[in-house]
Amino acid sequence: MLAETLAAIREADPRALADARDHQDRLTKPRGSLGVLEDVAIRLSGAAGACPPPMPEPAALAIFAADHGVHARGVTPWPQEVTVQMVANFLAGGAVANAFAAQAGASVTVVDVGVAADLPDAPNLVSHKVAYGTADLSRGPAMTVDQAVRALEAGIVVAKDLVAGGARCLITGDMGIANTTASAALISVFTGKDPAEVTGRGTGIDDKMYERKVAVVREALRANTLSDASSSPSEALRALAAVGGFEHAAIAGFILYGAAARVPVILDGVISGAAALVAAALDPATTDHCVAGHRSAEPGHSAALEHLGLRPLVDLELRLGEGTGGLLAHPMVCAAVRVMHDVATFDSAGVTEKPV
Amino acid sequence: MLAETLAAIREADPRALADARDHQDRLTKPRGSLGVLEDVAIRLSGAAGACPPPMPEPAALAIFAADHGVHARGVTPWPQEVTVQMVANFLAGGAVANAFAAQAGASVTVVDVGVAADLPDAPNLVSHKVAYGTADLSRGPAMTVDQAVRALEAGIVVAKDLVAGGARCLITGDMGIANTTASAALISVFTGKDPAEVTGRGTGIDDKMYERKVAVVREALRANTLSDASSSPSEALRALAAVGGFEHAAIAGFILYGAAARVPVILDGVISGAAALVAAALDPATTDHCVAGHRSAEPGHSAALEHLGLRPLVDLELRLGEGTGGLLAHPMVCAAVRVMHDVATFDSAGVTEKPV
Repeated sequence: MLAETLAAIREADPRALADARDHQDRLTKPRGSLGVLEDVAIRLSGAAGACPPPMPEPAALAIFAADHGVHARGVTPWPQEVTVQMVANFLAGGAVANAFAAQAGASVTVVDVGVAADLPDAPNLVSHKVAYGTADLSRGPAMTVDQAVRALEAGIVVAKDLVAGGARCLITGDMGIANTTASAALISVFTGKDPAEVTGRGTGIDDKMYERKVAVVREALRANTLSDASSSPSEALRALAAVGGFEHAAIAGFILYGAAARVPVILDGVISGAAALVAAALDPATTDHCVAGHRSAEPGHSAALEHLGLRPLVDLELRLGEGTGGLLAHPMVCAAVRVMHDVATFDSAGVTEKPV
Repeated sequence: MLAETLAAIREADPRALADARDHQDRLTKPRGSLGVLEDVAIRLSGAAGACPPPMPEPAALAIFAADHGVHARGVTPWPQEVTVQMVANFLAGGAVANAFAAQAGASVTVVDVGVAADLPDAPNLVSHKVAYGTADLSRGPAMTVDQAVRALEAGIVVAKDLVAGGARCLITGDMGIANTTASAALISVFTGKDPAEVTGRGTGIDDKMYERKVAVVREALRANTLSDASSSPSEALRALAAVGGFEHAAIAGFILYGAAARVPVILDGVISGAAALVAAALDPATTDHCVAGHRSAEPGHSAALEHLGLRPLVDLELRLGEGTGGLLAHPMVCAAVRVMHDVATFDSAGVTEKPV
């Protein structure tokens, strides 16, 4: 299923990109006056292979939840049980992601890809549990390559079901106590940056714990002898398995399916950014189908976005995850595309264009 | 009517601000993890005098249109007729503001406060025409103080009617060829910054025209002997009349009414920022009721926001006006407030709070 998905991914369509650029310049606004949103509309035209691209509505958020063996190393002040508790909160509609999804008119699907507890059945909860949490990445591989592929394919299945159900935009989300540690390790491996540059304070840790977190990421890179993770799909999978989490793998698969189906994917924060690096290493054309929803306060996220060549739409010091940054960006992505559908041209509206 | 509106304006309520801060810290998210959006929610609580504040929906955009005598000085490549043409485009639903308003579920009202032509009647067009454009601000006052007050009161009336019609959030918008020149002059006068620092390239002008634009702003400050514009309401009105436009005056009135009625106002770009400086000079408490929707590419806008102490939500190099930046921010403002209404607390959701 992974191979089939990868085989279906295409780069942005150059004709649609060119048509979209031309169309932007004919609309009743000064050229370039919509700034970054013009780039978004052009990007989505290229991704869809159509100008204008389809409206990216309705959107579907998937929150991939999993636990991390590295939690035992004391990299976060939050107990691991909070993963389960927050899954219950999502299912009850009480989390920030639910509030933002309601505002954006997006559906919320929670996916257990590796929570370290049995979860009771619930509507909107999908189980693709690969294991009860990963192994400790600082001592050796967090997952086997087979487990990583199973989690990737879980993400593909979830995206496929959401698109079959009518979703025209996919938003990535995550829940997993300690997952910023795995994200930092992945980002270090895929961008080549030093752990100290890409490790952040997650949800508010003190200096001592921060030092330990950086040291744990360094240990992870030493314990898992990784060559250049971006050099081939098999090396990318090996790196993902070594230092990633089940949610990173699943989000990478979710992104890959969006790219294969030409349904745009809005990336959330640092966990999604790390997963997008994996997806891009599996097929670089994947990134043509992604929009960076926001820039998280985590330094590793900026490094990931830079490596991917993506400019975030929202930059408001959020550091929550869950898909919240992606959900906030969704109305702007819709607004950018709606311009391509609704706005009159200088000719059609009888508006004088300034002499060029 | 202006005096009555000013008399009704109150500062942010300290009790509601404190309650909102406390409430944010009890919600199921790490403290501070919503970044700037926590500040927005707290700000709107203070403005409303209630925690949580009412949802700022539905929103109403008012686009205040006017012409400028300074157009004759060659400060823009666009012919003055484009103001009338764009008004027709707004009324036909063909402009970017219409597309963004549709996306945000906001109504659009177009207000003629000083277009230099007679406009045919249309639904959604409100006429409060004070004159057929301002006088050339580089040769003396653009308006009489009486005209400026009439335009201010037009903005008050428009806001009052929209709130009476159910609007729970006001969004400022403008249309007026050459109005970035008047904005630069206003911002220079109200912030004390040099014209070269606050004059921008508007909708794309070349170096030669830019030099002329800065020189014209300097002439305006010399031709109108202004003392400290922020020193008193009467000096503020005199400065507004001297170098402003009818749309700046009307937007200032629109903002003042929002503040008086405790209905939050989302400010658009540089024209709205200049108008907000006028409103704040008339009563500093006005700013407590404003949210900066975006940061325009115009340098004067950053100066105005800094002077007002406002941090913009959207920062994507837009330079279109019309209310587009305010409309883009509206869903984020709603999302910020919705968190206060919908999100569970640690206690209610049974989520373990991290040891502080």
